[in-house]
Amino acid sequence: MKKLADLQEIINDELKQLNFPLYPADLYEPIKYILSLGGKRMRPALLLMACDLFGGETKKAISPALAIEVFHNFTLMHDDIMDNAPLRRGKVTVHEKWNKNVAILSGDVMLVESYKLIMQVDDYLLRRVMNIFNETAVGVCEGQQTDMEFETRDDVHIDEYINMIRLKTAVLLGGALKIGAVIGGAKDHDATLLQTFGEQLGIAFQLQDDILDVYGDPEKFGKQVGGDILSNKKTFLLIKAFELADNKQAVELRRWFSGTHFDAKEKIDAVTGIYDQLNIRHHAWDAMHTYAGKAFAALDAISLPASQKQYLRDFADGLMIREN
Amino acid sequence: MKKLADLQEIINDELKQLNFPLYPADLYEPIKYILSLGGKRMRPALLLMACDLFGGETKKAISPALAIEVFHNFTLMHDDIMDNAPLRRGKVTVHEKWNKNVAILSGDVMLVESYKLIMQVDDYLLRRVMNIFNETAVGVCEGQQTDMEFETRDDVHIDEYINMIRLKTAVLLGGALKIGAVIGGAKDHDATLLQTFGEQLGIAFQLQDDILDVYGDPEKFGKQVGGDILSNKKTFLLIKAFELADNKQAVELRRWFSGTHFDAKEKIDAVTGIYDQLNIRHHAWDAMHTYAGKAFAALDAISLPASQKQYLRDFADGLMIREN
Repeated sequence: MKKLADLQEIINDELKQLNFPLYPADLYEPIKYILSLGGKRMRPALLLMACDLFGGETKKAISPALAIEVFHNFTLMHDDIMDNAPLRRGKVTVHEKWNKNVAILSGDVMLVESYKLIMQVDDYLLRRVMNIFNETAVGVCEGQQTDMEFETRDDVHIDEYINMIRLKTAVLLGGALKIGAVIGGAKDHDATLLQTFGEQLGIAFQLQDDILDVYGDPEKFGKQVGGDILSNKKTFLLIKAFELADNKQAVELRRWFSGTHFDAKEKIDAVTGIYDQLNIRHHAWDAMHTYAGKAFAALDAISLPASQKQYLRDFADGLMIREN
Repeated sequence: MKKLADLQEIINDELKQLNFPLYPADLYEPIKYILSLGGKRMRPALLLMACDLFGGETKKAISPALAIEVFHNFTLMHDDIMDNAPLRRGKVTVHEKWNKNVAILSGDVMLVESYKLIMQVDDYLLRRVMNIFNETAVGVCEGQQTDMEFETRDDVHIDEYINMIRLKTAVLLGGALKIGAVIGGAKDHDATLLQTFGEQLGIAFQLQDDILDVYGDPEKFGKQVGGDILSNKKTFLLIKAFELADNKQAVELRRWFSGTHFDAKEKIDAVTGIYDQLNIRHHAWDAMHTYAGKAFAALDAISLPASQKQYLRDFADGLMIREN
């Protein structure tokens, strides 16, 4: 089994070798720029790993892996416009460095470029791989739209939230793994199981993000603890808290999340206090482990010897005990 | 040979039957909305005609034809954001009716939907059709970016202008015809000739647009005559005028195109006066016929009996004597 770190390095090397035209400069420079900002390249590396898992040649999966990374960065470029984000990975965003029109159009051509890359598979795989890619791309767009709609809704249910994070973040991981599996020669059933592994793991990962944002160790977390609370983000924790709150707690939560003038520390402490009263951390932890459990069950069901799947299992285990 | 009007009707019927999910509503409603605004459906109808020309079954070309129309409308949705356009075909634009974020994301998913449609061809054609579609899509994005860059440039050369309109408007017509030809069973050489026919005709068509904007019959033109002059648009006429102007004329042109306070009629009359002095209408007419001539030469070179190509020739002739 190839190591994830090696595969990430392969992806980084290959990304550097991606060629884009020189002109129009404002169309292609932003693509090179956003791809140069780094990132863990987890999705494309796992695509290669999935290919390797089923005995495929990883070099046949490199272009599709790059397609996933280019697609992912296209979504980041457009999401940053929609979110008015000034920074991405600590660097100025494309729409700030250039302008919004450039970010819209560069993103568009990135999506086309990702299709050019995903097509670089053997003919007999082309339609299957493209179908997975299309389905994945539609899911990611639906997830982003649903997320934006949640900002103005007060009645988001836990199931809707889980489905939103599934679409917005988990289907791309699942799709990447499935594409890698298909290229590696997996049967449909096994490829779909690996996709499920990725999707469920992605949900668990996002739930853990929600938990870490409130309960992470400030010294290890890397971001401001309580950031989601300050930005009124509807996380699993908040939605669950509203679900379980008594009248008094609900009134207090609503007050904190409707006011615009407050002391940051006071708000974080108060909301965390209510979360603690309601045992929200425990509920979120439970949910996270439920989805991680589904991921492991899917992995177990894949018709390969357990020893071959151990690396992915260890990887997933590692994700679940992260602190940032 | 099937008639264009019948093919346009087929496209309109098929567009109405396109199914999109109900949710998220703000992702899919804008797609249905922009597709319902009408338009001549010229590109998809010509794709079907190209298929028919080479003896193919047009029903096998319907999904790819819809792909071209969905793609075209995706570009309109995003272009309207970039141009801050309030209206599209007399109706409020998507980013005005909903908001910019909705228009960005709906456009994104439209691009994915166009890929889902273009893929609906027989396996042995899939890669060829997709390659043409990718090349076309990249060209259109490059054309839009180049057009935006021209707005802030004062040194645009005629050749650059022609290349910009080729990319922005003509390659999609050429790509549509080539895809139709390939599905219809054309050999590569013939399919490429038909693509050239479409591209060169598209350039001629756009040059005629530039001419009509200034010299069109106000009663037949449908838009305000002189609209391009009022919006300081860099058209063939303006670029050519700067190329041919003496010092005095150049100073006067620059004055009209740099000022912000002016009487509309006075500006149109003055600029048109300079165009007349420089015989710009004649130069534009010449250029238009040069590109139309290249289109006809490509059509002539296709290895089909002249009688089979007569309908397309008549169609192109008709385009060149339009008044709106």
